[in-house]
Parts: sequence; C-alpha cells; structure tokens
Amino acid sequence: MTAAAGSINRQWVLASRPSGLVKESNFAWKEVLLPKLEEGQFLVRNLYLSFDPAMRGWMEDRPSYIPPVAVGEVMRAGSVGQVVESKSPAFRPGDFVQGTFGWQDYAVSDGRGLLPVSKLPPGVPLTWPLGVLGITALTAYFGLLDLGKPKAGETVVVSGAAGATGSVAAQIAKLKGCRVIGIAGGRDKCAWLRDEAGLDAAIDYKAEDVGSRLRDLCPRSVEIYFDNVGGEILDAVLAQIATRARIVLCGGISGYNASEPPPGPRNYMNLVIQRARMEGFIVLDYAARFGEAVRELAAWVTSGKIKHQEDVQVGLENAPRTLLRLFEGKNLGKQLLKVSEPPL
Amino acid sequence: MTAAAGSINRQWVLASRPSGLVKESNFAWKEVLLPKLEEGQFLVRNLYLSFDPAMRGWMEDRPSYIPPVAVGEVMRAGSVGQVVESKSPAFRPGDFVQGTFGWQDYAVSDGRGLLPVSKLPPGVPLTWPLGVLGITALTAYFGLLDLGKPKAGETVVVSGAAGATGSVAAQIAKLKGCRVIGIAGGRDKCAWLRDEAGLDAAIDYKAEDVGSRLRDLCPRSVEIYFDNVGGEILDAVLAQIATRARIVLCGGISGYNASEPPPGPRNYMNLVIQRARMEGFIVLDYAARFGEAVRELAAWVTSGKIKHQEDVQVGLENAPRTLLRLFEGKNLGKQLLKVSEPPL
Repeated sequence: MTAAAGSINRQWVLASRPSGLVKESNFAWKEVLLPKLEEGQFLVRNLYLSFDPAMRGWMEDRPSYIPPVAVGEVMRAGSVGQVVESKSPAFRPGDFVQGTFGWQDYAVSDGRGLLPVSKLPPGVPLTWPLGVLGITALTAYFGLLDLGKPKAGETVVVSGAAGATGSVAAQIAKLKGCRVIGIAGGRDKCAWLRDEAGLDAAIDYKAEDVGSRLRDLCPRSVEIYFDNVGGEILDAVLAQIATRARIVLCGGISGYNASEPPPGPRNYMNLVIQRARMEGFIVLDYAARFGEAVRELAAWVTSGKIKHQEDVQVGLENAPRTLLRLFEGKNLGKQLLKVSEPPL
Repeated sequence: MTAAAGSINRQWVLASRPSGLVKESNFAWKEVLLPKLEEGQFLVRNLYLSFDPAMRGWMEDRPSYIPPVAVGEVMRAGSVGQVVESKSPAFRPGDFVQGTFGWQDYAVSDGRGLLPVSKLPPGVPLTWPLGVLGITALTAYFGLLDLGKPKAGETVVVSGAAGATGSVAAQIAKLKGCRVIGIAGGRDKCAWLRDEAGLDAAIDYKAEDVGSRLRDLCPRSVEIYFDNVGGEILDAVLAQIATRARIVLCGGISGYNASEPPPGPRNYMNLVIQRARMEGFIVLDYAARFGEAVRELAAWVTSGKIKHQEDVQVGLENAPRTLLRLFEGKNLGKQLLKVSEPPL
C-alpha cells in the first residue's frame, strides 16, 4: 500500500479555539490531495497517534513553550509512522519513524521539527516510542530524577498515577527505594497501581477523600510530590509536605479545560513553613539526554521493572473523541489511536 | 531606675486567637509582680519592641516553624532591652541585649531561647538590631542571595518593597547589579523607593494596576521575585516571569488575616511553562551564618549603600494597635514601639 501525489489525505484541523472543555466541534474534518514531494522530503503514513494532556494547551492562543496550533492547521500530535515514499537520502520507504506528524493519514516531512524525526530502533514494539519509551516517560524520568531527586526511604506521592507519565514516575521512585503513593481515579486504576505497578498505596480520588487518606498514609511526610493534576489534590498534598519537600510541577490537567485559570493552591504558603520548593519543567529542555534516558527506561521495561498499559482506540475519525478521553479520565495508561495497520 | 522583685510588670497577653483581622481585643492588659531572680537569671527592661507580619502566624493554633503563642501567654516579640539586675555571670546590669522578650516592661531570662539572648555590639544604634541589622534584614539577605541568586543585569521585583524586609532585599539586589522594581502601597513609599533607596521603578499598588505596570516595565522578564505579600500581586508577577525565574517566597501578608487560606496563585502553572521555581524559607535555618551577614549588612548601612526607615510608635499600651499598623500598611519602614527611654 503506497500513496502518491494526488492521493487523498484525511485530516483533522483545528476549527476553533476551545472555551472551557474541548469539544469535538473544535475540530474539522478535511480531505486534501497529497502534494508532490520536493527534494529532501519524504512521505510518512501515520500508524499510531499519541494523545497527551499538553495538547489542550497547544490549542490556546497564548504564549507558551511552543507556538499554539493555528486555526485551520492540522492538529499537532506525536506519532509513529512508516515512510512510504522518499526524496531524502536519510529516510527510505519502509523505515519506521517517530515525529510530530499530526492528526492525519499522511504527513510530508523533511525530518526537521521541534523534535526531529527519528527512526525507531529495530525490535522495539511500534507503540512504545509513544508511550513507555516516549515523551511522557521521558517527562517522568527527568522530572522525578532531576527535580525530585528521590532518596531511598523518602515518601513520594504521584497524581495522575495511572497515566502515561505518572505511572512511570511512580515506578522509577519505587526503583529508587522510595515509599510511593499513587492518586488516580477509579477502582481499576488503583488496583493496577497496587497489584501490577507495585505501589505501596493508591488513593481513588473519585471515591475517597484525598486529604484524609493522605493524613493517614503520610502525615507531614511527603518529600516529593510529582503533580500531573493541580487543583484540590495539589492543595491536599501541600498540606502534608515534609520539610525541604520538592514539588515537581509536571501538569495540571484538572484546570486545562477551564476558561479562566482556576484558583491556585491555597496551601502554597506551606512552602514557606516547610522550606519547600515547587518547580516546573519542560521535557524538551532535556533533549540532549533523551538517548541515555530511553536506554535506561528500555532496560527497566524489558526486564519487567516498569509495567505499562496502553489504551488503543482505532480510526482517525475518532481522534477528537480520543482526546476527550484524557479529560474524562477514561484512559487506562497511555492513550493512543491506531490510524492504520502496520506493517504496510 | 531599677526594678526588683515585687515591682509591677505591665504585659499584653494573648486573650483569644484572632479570626480574620487581628483586633486589639485579642490581647489583654495585665499587671503582675516581678518574681525574685533565680541563680543564672537576669532581668531585662524592654526599650524597643519589634513588630513583624510573622507575628500574626504565631497567634494561630496550627503547626508551624515555631510553636504558637499560648492563650494567656505574653505576646511574643523580638526586642532590645537593658539588663537591670542579674544573677548570671554572662550578663551585667547596664548591658544592652537583644532577645525575644515580648510585649511587657520587663522580662526574666536565662539567656536561652529560639534566638539566644545576645549583647549588642558597642556603638550600634539601639534600634538597628531590630531593623536594618535584625531578623527582617537577615531574611532579606538569605532569601535574596541564597534562594534568588541574583546575577548582574537580571530584573528583580520585590513586593512589600518599602517594608523592613523588602527594602533590604531590593537594595541588596541593586548592589548586585540588578534592575529592581519595587511594589508598595502609597505615593510616599514609592517616592522613598525611587529617590532614597535608588530603585529603578516603583509601583503603587493602591493607585496603579500592578499587572499592566509590570507588563510595561518588565514583560516576561522577571528573573527574581521576592514576595512578601502573596495574593493578586503574586499572580500578576507570575504572569511576567522569565524562563528559569526564581520566586523567593518570604511572606504572604495579604492573606495573613483571612480566616481560611485565600485562593492561591492562579498563574502558578507559568512555573511549568517558564521552567521556574517557587521556594520558601525560614531565616532561622541560617542562624549559623547570622554573624557573617550582620557584618556585611552593617558595612552596607554605615557606608550609606543601604538606606532604611524606622517607624517608631511609643508606649507599651499601644502595642496591639502598633501591630495593626502592619496589616493596614501604615508603617513606613521597620515598625518599632519604644517602651522606655534609654539609657536607664
């Protein structure tokens, strides 16, 4: 199966900027003709698209760490695909590649970009570079190790702990000898955290009072909090931080769909009383060290020390509603969408 | 003028814990007889009492970095006094001393305490150890230098900039070659910051829109924010932080009199986008380095590189309303209360 100039490329473009919860109607379906490749370009067929909470931020027209997606532009997404045609010496038809190819069947690339296109290492399952070896896992790796600096015996709390980033952060903390408590929504996620990922405890924020569970499990002893959610859970953890605690600000999904930024953490003054720190980071700053981190993560995953889950939806037409799954908390592990069947 | 066992000691004790804005009625006036000194003790007559926003926190019955003041206990305050009687070999009548002697005419001490009693260096004006060489100045020194780590050319914003801590933090930042913008309430305070303290700009939060002034003065370029106030001003500064900014959390006076913690900073997620840090500290952790810092501060003050103001009220009977001045923003510089006339 190949494609050539003049073939149809199905796309989802950003139709309007969301106000409040992102809706399917913020995207528009488009069918366009594939252009002829120019010298140095190659054509990629998307196999799997990655879905991440950060995508909600890319849809906003405000200054951030990367430019917003323009209205009318194909929705940005990391993906894994296969080269089907090439005028580039670096990429040959059949190569499996990883890049920011967006919500479409095909992408034309010259290999450059915020994250340059890279070939998948041989033998790696096609979905891993988007999940347990991907940006979300690297985010967990650098956030926990570089900002959190876990020491054996410390207590680490992770929110969004069953998600793609949180589950890796929590398990790396376990590997470093920490006591790890995960916060996630739902019985299944919490059971997976305890029984599969080997966490010391899990708190179901949908069914339990997070504050009172934290008071029971770790009264004023949270040395590291890896935060993916913000909101009330951040406040509940702030109330239990230990002296010299490190709060690693990775995300704040609870507020991503608010029209105005929601109130910040009321208990932030505990940072003063406990001489503690709250610090944000962007994983792209660590690009020079991605190789080293992927090798270490791959060793942990293949030896079974890091468990992972993938939630694979199917069909490009389902891209908007697959994104919504993240904000509804429906995804079990890394949220992916299969766009076409490999190998081609 | 001396005092002996059986003389009257006038005191203000904590009568009730405040809910909301602290009121004069939270304190009760008491007259007690001075006890007989025991071996190792000495009697101090208070000359000046120090007033600090942190006192509001000491009145709350909740875990903090030091125990709360008990109901019925003399209100805690740093002060400078003179030894009038002694059964301690270390302190002689006539010695000028600094300690936590509280809201009363006389205190009996054995020299120990959270901050041990120390003699004033000869030649130092009596009020300086409570102000420009005191805990508030040390707070500015360690917070700005150890957490903020200012580099020449960086932009530093200081809130509560005309206060005892903020004015020193702002001027140290100037000494380090930074561009410094102070935020304070009122025309007089802002004029002092510009004309006397030599800041590059001052924002009057009572008369100006802090957010729009910050956008004009330092759009997305605040490398260090030294925060004494919290609240909306913290949010406005968070919107303008530079990449890798350091927010030094010193205090949050805007929220100290709230019954419930007020909403936290809505814009805290800018810490992620800008890879920035917000960190709290307690100056008592730096006690081992106080000597070095006081020497450096004293050199700056005596050579005129650091300007300071003192707001001296008079009369122990005015202690509660002097505390209120801080929360009304009435004090110009360090708030003190003269209790009796030196030298005795």
